Amino acid sequence: MDVSTPMRQALALAGQAVGLTEPNPRVGCVLVGADGAVLGQGHTQRAGGPHAEIVALRDAAAAGRDVRGATAYVTLEPCSHHGRTGPCCDALVAAGIARVVASCTDPNPLVAGQGFGRLRAAGVAVETGDGGAASRELNLGFFSRMVRGTPWVRLKVAASLDGKTALDDGRSQWITGEAARADGHAWRARATAVLTGIGTVLQDDPRLDVRLAPAERQPDLAVVDSRLELPPTARLFLPGRRLWVYTAQPDAARRAELEARGAEVIALPGPGGKVDLAAMLRDLARREVNELHVEAGFKLNGSLVREGLVDEVLAYLAPKLIGQGQGVASFGPLPALDAALPLRFLTTDRIGDDLRVIARVAGRDVF
Amino acid sequence: MDVSTPMRQALALAGQAVGLTEPNPRVGCVLVGADGAVLGQGHTQRAGGPHAEIVALRDAAAAGRDVRGATAYVTLEPCSHHGRTGPCCDALVAAGIARVVASCTDPNPLVAGQGFGRLRAAGVAVETGDGGAASRELNLGFFSRMVRGTPWVRLKVAASLDGKTALDDGRSQWITGEAARADGHAWRARATAVLTGIGTVLQDDPRLDVRLAPAERQPDLAVVDSRLELPPTARLFLPGRRLWVYTAQPDAARRAELEARGAEVIALPGPGGKVDLAAMLRDLARREVNELHVEAGFKLNGSLVREGLVDEVLAYLAPKLIGQGQGVASFGPLPALDAALPLRFLTTDRIGDDLRVIARVAGRDVF
Repeated sequence: MDVSTPMRQALALAGQAVGLTEPNPRVGCVLVGADGAVLGQGHTQRAGGPHAEIVALRDAAAAGRDVRGATAYVTLEPCSHHGRTGPCCDALVAAGIARVVASCTDPNPLVAGQGFGRLRAAGVAVETGDGGAASRELNLGFFSRMVRGTPWVRLKVAASLDGKTALDDGRSQWITGEAARADGHAWRARATAVLTGIGTVLQDDPRLDVRLAPAERQPDLAVVDSRLELPPTARLFLPGRRLWVYTAQPDAARRAELEARGAEVIALPGPGGKVDLAAMLRDLARREVNELHVEAGFKLNGSLVREGLVDEVLAYLAPKLIGQGQGVASFGPLPALDAALPLRFLTTDRIGDDLRVIARVAGRDVF
Repeated sequence: MDVSTPMRQALALAGQAVGLTEPNPRVGCVLVGADGAVLGQGHTQRAGGPHAEIVALRDAAAAGRDVRGATAYVTLEPCSHHGRTGPCCDALVAAGIARVVASCTDPNPLVAGQGFGRLRAAGVAVETGDGGAASRELNLGFFSRMVRGTPWVRLKVAASLDGKTALDDGRSQWITGEAARADGHAWRARATAVLTGIGTVLQDDPRLDVRLAPAERQPDLAVVDSRLELPPTARLFLPGRRLWVYTAQPDAARRAELEARGAEVIALPGPGGKVDLAAMLRDLARREVNELHVEAGFKLNGSLVREGLVDEVLAYLAPKLIGQGQGVASFGPLPALDAALPLRFLTTDRIGDDLRVIARVAGRDVF
């Protein structure tokens, strides 16, 4: 479907909010006068800060432009509830906006059409659908959390062309080049949280923060640690970032040690002494995680695939063959080839000497 | 380096000879008059047929165009020897061509500069270098055979995104889609010969001919069969195609059986009861194999990688994850990650739903 010019601009503004607004959606707003002139524009700020509509209204006011009778192009339904900020609907009405063109309905049950209702009740004309697919795609994690009650799960993989992510002994530094690693950090930066497994922590002692790319905020971190083996000396304890440790064996002394370091230990025992991963995703959604960026080894990756919890694969393929080594995800053996996890390639791009492939698990984005 | 317009045209003609001229190089020729008009053009025909220069001269003659004083743009040094056809040099001189612009010297020791010498001795001006890199690239297999004494070895792989080529039990039909399989046949068609291993033959009983793409000729076939297990009933015995069976154990009765079916059994025993693969490649070059298209399982692939015999990887990656299964190539374990086989990605293209990656082993094209 064609997207109008002002809505394209609003979507571009929303794109600038990626990595900034978590856990709020990425929203852009453009105010257009009757003569087609842009009167003000903006995107949602850091959580607790103003939403896109407010930023756009302030932008117009700062330039001394009269927005009475104008049209507001906004990439998501204006909010109607008092969250961290006041309702945007009321602000638009108060400013004299005559017409609102919105890309899609806010899936947040606290809004979910009530924003449009409130605008219409105040005499504002409302149209929806312009740029709807792009806005939803930009906020797929937010939509997933609101609609499915789980985050959008993106599996990040760095492998050789023959699908090896590490040598047999776990050494994996480095399979891909610097540019790919920096790009991987940019993907971390847009996620609400990073997820890893205790195997990766014990093997590499990683920080899993954003260092090689610009970051407005650090994503939070979740660790799957069934037997609660996380060393309190691990490098991933970082100030200002929440750390959730999911375990099946919440030993009290260890828990106390980790909590003293600032972690939150969450017991979600599942079958076989393992963490119940599906329950963990629901818990992460309750903690307002939209996009979950998974950087783990073949065991946790395999468990996530086996349990049908992966939505997307972000794979960096390095131009090399490794032969014997650890694979991407240990699941199977499959009864037949048509039981393979079906993906759809979205994009393929060269990043430095490496190849980046983004693939989506077939049907997972339909909800 | 810039390539002249007539040479671009000659290179395009040479490209049309791919899959046709084996084991001869792919060569194009354009005859240009003093006023810049194209007087005649052509490319090398099927082995035994006329070379590009002769086709171009005949083209001009058929149109009644006078080529005396013209320039011949040809993508390889005109031949000076009596092979299957007469020397092209003599034909150019006899036609009154005043100047020859050639992309590169013919690496064939029977030519190797003698063609240029013969032209100059007859008073023809000779320039070289125009389009040299492209012509060499187009004929990399021919150059490899002439210079290294081995074919250009292209490993064809069809794998899932996680690098699995088959289930544990060997089932591999089909990992990639129809379009990728047809594209794979087009790559078979340009090779002089296809190479496979006895494991693949016993598992899949393949024909390994060109059926899903246009073919001017069928590539010959080589099978690595250390213990001479090839069943005389295998489907790969096809009329009009040479079949070479390389073995380490040339049992006389089995050999007789296979030779009765039209195969040639070649004993090249190496260490460990295996075929000496390096010697096999030299033998294949003596049999005029330029490009060797390898379609084999992880064992033979692994042996070729381990012995440093692979030049290029032609990988089709399917949008799926398989988890447990057979890999691309069984070699290693490596002592460290920097011992991985280094590649360079040449091209990445979507073929149907799959991804085609062409990668070259670093440094292998420098010879």
